[in-house]
Amino acid sequence: MSIVTAQRMRNVRRSFVREILKAAASRDVISFAGGLPNPKMIPVAQIGRAIQEVLAEQGPSALQYCAAEGHPALRQWVAEQYNVAGLSVVPEQILITTGSQQALDLLGKVLIEPGDRVIVEDPTYVAAIQSLGIFEPEWCPVLMDSEGIDADGLRTALRGGAKMVYAMPNFQNPTGISYSAARREAVVELLQHSEAILIEDDPYNRLRYRGQAIPPMARDLPTRAILLGTFSKIFAPGLRLGWLCAPLELMEKLTIAKQAADLCSENLGQWAIQRLLASGEFERHLKTIREVYASQCDAMLDAVARHLPDVQTTRPDGGMFLWITLPDNMSAIELFQRAIARGVAFVPGQAFFARGGGEDTLRLNFTHGDASRIDEGMRRLALAVEDLRSAQVPR
Amino acid sequence: MSIVTAQRMRNVRRSFVREILKAAASRDVISFAGGLPNPKMIPVAQIGRAIQEVLAEQGPSALQYCAAEGHPALRQWVAEQYNVAGLSVVPEQILITTGSQQALDLLGKVLIEPGDRVIVEDPTYVAAIQSLGIFEPEWCPVLMDSEGIDADGLRTALRGGAKMVYAMPNFQNPTGISYSAARREAVVELLQHSEAILIEDDPYNRLRYRGQAIPPMARDLPTRAILLGTFSKIFAPGLRLGWLCAPLELMEKLTIAKQAADLCSENLGQWAIQRLLASGEFERHLKTIREVYASQCDAMLDAVARHLPDVQTTRPDGGMFLWITLPDNMSAIELFQRAIARGVAFVPGQAFFARGGGEDTLRLNFTHGDASRIDEGMRRLALAVEDLRSAQVPR
Repeated sequence: MSIVTAQRMRNVRRSFVREILKAAASRDVISFAGGLPNPKMIPVAQIGRAIQEVLAEQGPSALQYCAAEGHPALRQWVAEQYNVAGLSVVPEQILITTGSQQALDLLGKVLIEPGDRVIVEDPTYVAAIQSLGIFEPEWCPVLMDSEGIDADGLRTALRGGAKMVYAMPNFQNPTGISYSAARREAVVELLQHSEAILIEDDPYNRLRYRGQAIPPMARDLPTRAILLGTFSKIFAPGLRLGWLCAPLELMEKLTIAKQAADLCSENLGQWAIQRLLASGEFERHLKTIREVYASQCDAMLDAVARHLPDVQTTRPDGGMFLWITLPDNMSAIELFQRAIARGVAFVPGQAFFARGGGEDTLRLNFTHGDASRIDEGMRRLALAVEDLRSAQVPR
Repeated sequence: MSIVTAQRMRNVRRSFVREILKAAASRDVISFAGGLPNPKMIPVAQIGRAIQEVLAEQGPSALQYCAAEGHPALRQWVAEQYNVAGLSVVPEQILITTGSQQALDLLGKVLIEPGDRVIVEDPTYVAAIQSLGIFEPEWCPVLMDSEGIDADGLRTALRGGAKMVYAMPNFQNPTGISYSAARREAVVELLQHSEAILIEDDPYNRLRYRGQAIPPMARDLPTRAILLGTFSKIFAPGLRLGWLCAPLELMEKLTIAKQAADLCSENLGQWAIQRLLASGEFERHLKTIREVYASQCDAMLDAVARHLPDVQTTRPDGGMFLWITLPDNMSAIELFQRAIARGVAFVPGQAFFARGGGEDTLRLNFTHGDASRIDEGMRRLALAVEDLRSAQVPR
């Protein structure tokens, strides 16, 4: 007699990306599939030192439960970052979460009723689909172009009434696209005339390699926007620490949901990060990783141009990913099999579309590997493209 | 224009215990309210050393994302513990969670449909009510007696059809009661003839101070029971690491839910715990904390007998709590106000009843404070009882 699971889990697909990452895990494979920092850019020694100092100073209290909302000093630091960027935020609006992934889970729980319409970029961050999808929204994907989410598409989607718009306006995962200033204004204006809540996911905010930082759209939607951020990309993903910033009226329900989900986030890591932020090390570290990732991004763009001259690619101003469109409607899924055989991996783009599409696209991560690995990986990818082409000719 | 939250959050109460803990947080208050380990029993130096060794050996990989299921070595250790206890478990049945609290969230998500009947002990662990409650079950509380959940009550409740039974058969939170062998058999037999799933929450399993360990009821319900456990009580709550053990058929959905909730649990802490388990330190540490907590438990029972001779108390064989029934239908809520004024805190028992009741009961934690604090706290509690009595006389 098998166990009957809840309806909400029946629609949730087994993670395609997860399967991809497993296939890419072999040592012989150069993987551009994951979304990992370069191991050399994880400040192991600094984190280790901070932990020892915290344990020496705080003793066992650094290993007890802490407040569900998170450490006051961290909440204050996050609020200050937003205030410097032109928002008006108090620490009580910040909830420290177990990675920013948890923020999506909490927002789904607190806000989404089954059947609520949720507008997402098409393509979008696949783990948001998974996380929010458990709460059974009706997805309304709106196409992305090179300046961000399509404004006409958004207008049409909002007309039907929507609970929320989930967007990643800076160096989007998966495409690397950033919204233009004009597009941001258009989105803000549309949302100001709607009841939809904006979830502005901004995990790569501090990983900008080119151009000027732009204030979050949330600045102009103070009562109807929620910002997500994370320490995963600037310190270490394994600490599982991120945050959300929401209007005060939502904080009680979000805090209850947080407490129900895991009581509180990891305590020792919050202490350690606090220490790193308070010292000068944070800004120094950030400067280093920005320089390194900028050069890795350039190395990948160069390698694509050199080895794969007939593909189209985005040119990200920051973040971790670029997006490839293959020539001749070539299937990225078919290419993936050949690529693994050649010792290189990526994520086929269709994984990121809420309702299918993007069969000829793929996502490449440029932060994990050094320039030489990037070049060798692109050489292998070009061989895989040739393999697929020659296999298709005889048909 | 205020933001409309989802129906599932409208029924969730602001945590009463949370408010209690805030009131108890003053330095002048001796608090028996929380469920914290004694700070002296958190192995700060060992954890610190393990972290340094892990960082030296594993480098940045200890700070990247890890598998959603958790570290293979930890899953194997947990499976082995169950096998030693007479179960037949493979590591693939273990999911490492962000505290065992997260296991409740994942089980609620994967199993509970709105309106599903969920049987709980009355009183029960309040954070389970909060966590499972988000998925809108219909609660079916079944009274506890000194041998565990009432078997007749359980039979009646199961007759109506139930999705799950949530139970804590060892040193229950909040009462400290352990199910007798006969009661366990009765519960197992009832469940063998029902379709309900048993959630056997066993956070204090290794904190037994008296008597013989008893195999989990799950042993005799291999296809319909889920076990929960945690490293919080034996190492440190702040690491946020626990686990669930479920039938294989549920593991895919649970893993997807885990990934959607926070991608993976904290990586560095998993490495550190693995090291402590592999060395002899774990068993030595366990021996120490068992001795210390056993003596604190005795100290509290002695102090209650000395200062509060007219209350009833449970006599726990392990765990972290004992349960007091006040004389003369005295209100524990009214007593709480007096107690805070006298500098002592507890949790009024009614917080643990799914549908009200238990107004004359309260929960006391004996693991957090040393024997001298326990004695002084009980002295203050006796004064608060007198305060309340003399305030009531003139009426």
